[in-house]
Amino acid sequence: MSERDPIEELVALLARLPGIGERTATRLAHYILAGEADYASALGERIAQIHARVRKCERCGNFCAGTRCPICCDPRREESTICVVARVPDLTAIEKSGSFRGRYHVLHGLLAPLDGVGPDQLPLEGLVSRVKESEVREIVVATPLSVEGEATALYLAQVMRPYGVRVSRIASGIPHGGELEYADQVTVGRAFEGRRELT
Amino acid sequence: MSERDPIEELVALLARLPGIGERTATRLAHYILAGEADYASALGERIAQIHARVRKCERCGNFCAGTRCPICCDPRREESTICVVARVPDLTAIEKSGSFRGRYHVLHGLLAPLDGVGPDQLPLEGLVSRVKESEVREIVVATPLSVEGEATALYLAQVMRPYGVRVSRIASGIPHGGELEYADQVTVGRAFEGRRELT
Repeated sequence: MSERDPIEELVALLARLPGIGERTATRLAHYILAGEADYASALGERIAQIHARVRKCERCGNFCAGTRCPICCDPRREESTICVVARVPDLTAIEKSGSFRGRYHVLHGLLAPLDGVGPDQLPLEGLVSRVKESEVREIVVATPLSVEGEATALYLAQVMRPYGVRVSRIASGIPHGGELEYADQVTVGRAFEGRRELT
Repeated sequence: MSERDPIEELVALLARLPGIGERTATRLAHYILAGEADYASALGERIAQIHARVRKCERCGNFCAGTRCPICCDPRREESTICVVARVPDLTAIEKSGSFRGRYHVLHGLLAPLDGVGPDQLPLEGLVSRVKESEVREIVVATPLSVEGEATALYLAQVMRPYGVRVSRIASGIPHGGELEYADQVTVGRAFEGRRELT
């Protein structure tokens, strides 16, 4: 065979997905091959076309089919608060919780100097012009509670300082239903720092 | 939006893969979307084309690019022994072990009366004609050691009886490096039944 084996080729591509090792990739390839050809065509075409079919909202960066996402188009959402997230799945998690009724801004990344993402690589112009142009009173930074997420939050607070907008950070602490016994030291420390008076 | 959301559509298709729940499917979809469009095209096209690009060997049922698989074409493999497997990944596992130098026959299924696969649905004509036409002396049944695999092995022995070919079954017992303490009762029982004299 002069060409590369089609199954091996598929396995190699599947194994690049996160959390999918070569064993799982092999299992998936054989599942696709053993199943209906229609399913393979449908799945394959959707994957191949996903970049063409999904666009970023020109305003907030959320994924959408048109130029503006449903959240930016919804007149019932508060204009005065913008929640900044690193990635669209984080936005989805917040929407599922029903705890936020303002608008979003998706960074599609975080400050990560070690990976070559410095302050200049983080696209903040869009957020800055939204703050300048509309009456934004508060920015809730909901980036992950990781080193990179925290660094991005601090950097955002600094960038926003000249515009007189309040920048807040989501709380860190013991998760709902969580045991203190199994929480790491940093989380326990943060839960104490962020304690609130019971009224 | 009149159309279904492209991300949701992709997530639903990915979630049909074995071992991939909706959460993992969502993570994979966002990974594909966040990555290079070239990768998405390559992966998508390979999946869509896999049924067209992979054929079954006309002789043994192994997957291959042409009409006969490399194992059937290899003159160094013994003609006299055929190893029967349920699926191609089982064949691959046997090849990796280097423990078999004969030919294969892939059933692409097992007897499963509860799922509507009775003796008539199991394609054995190919195997029977191979036994009739060439000098096959032994059939090693390497179907899984499950209820369905065992039933298929017994059925194969019955089908092959008129042809005077020896039908053997791979051994069942404690896996290499395994502890008796953690083995199930059936496995321990089989290890005793299948004991061999040390010489």
